[in-house]
Amino acid sequence: MSTEIERKFVLDAPPQDLAEHPSEPIAQGYVALDEDVEVRVRRRGERTFLTIKAGSGRRRVEQELEIEPERFDALWPLTEGRRIVKRRYLVPVGADALTLEVDVYEDALAGLVVAECEFPDDAAADAFVSPDWLGREVTDDPRWKNQALALHGRPE
Amino acid sequence: MSTEIERKFVLDAPPQDLAEHPSEPIAQGYVALDEDVEVRVRRRGERTFLTIKAGSGRRRVEQELEIEPERFDALWPLTEGRRIVKRRYLVPVGADALTLEVDVYEDALAGLVVAECEFPDDAAADAFVSPDWLGREVTDDPRWKNQALALHGRPE
Repeated sequence: MSTEIERKFVLDAPPQDLAEHPSEPIAQGYVALDEDVEVRVRRRGERTFLTIKAGSGRRRVEQELEIEPERFDALWPLTEGRRIVKRRYLVPVGADALTLEVDVYEDALAGLVVAECEFPDDAAADAFVSPDWLGREVTDDPRWKNQALALHGRPE
Repeated sequence: MSTEIERKFVLDAPPQDLAEHPSEPIAQGYVALDEDVEVRVRRRGERTFLTIKAGSGRRRVEQELEIEPERFDALWPLTEGRRIVKRRYLVPVGADALTLEVDVYEDALAGLVVAECEFPDDAAADAFVSPDWLGREVTDDPRWKNQALALHGRPE
């Protein structure tokens, strides 16, 4: 498994042309959290997944299983109080064929807009100059991780 | 999902003819335990499964997914210190076409022999007269559940 090199930003508002870009709804919730192990279900568009993540660095484990929607529906009630519902837009940015994932949150996190950009390597991540509308960077702030947002809501 | 009606017994020793009956090795471990949610992986013979159980009574959820052995191998390290390894024998008993699952534990629980019998209804469970070699009944003792055995070892 390769390491993901990502930078994350919190936007003040969604970009004006957001609706022109392809998007899909995402609902995810945590079935079990046990020390550094997280067990999550996610619906992305029409497809549904169960993901187990654990550890960090070399000891990292990540297994994603596609599951039937009926299984998702059976497991979803277990995630009550630990959910994220959002719409993800794919927005091209810059000249380097980069794509931003812009997540517009709903429900308890309505109003929150977060963008993530994945880079092929550290050099590309360092070279990326974020446009003003991307707002401030929160890449290294654990309060903006999905699990933290699901459990504790928006920081501050 | 139907309710299982089972009775469980702790044997003093394996029955003498045990090796004559069909059996398969079982290895299971707990990936995550979070309040009443348990996420378990199990290898039974050549097949491997991921199971999520939660709740009790009407709110009970149980989802078992068959997974590839490679996924089992990736998740198994997460179960360290919370495992059960045993061989399960299927032993017919009585005149009513009942089958006992006789589990002979290994590793940390070596020496432990537990038998479970599943019944079609309460009346059949009540009517079952256990043979002497089945030892004492522990059906209602939570210390003999698999999760408790994996976490805390043999009771007493």
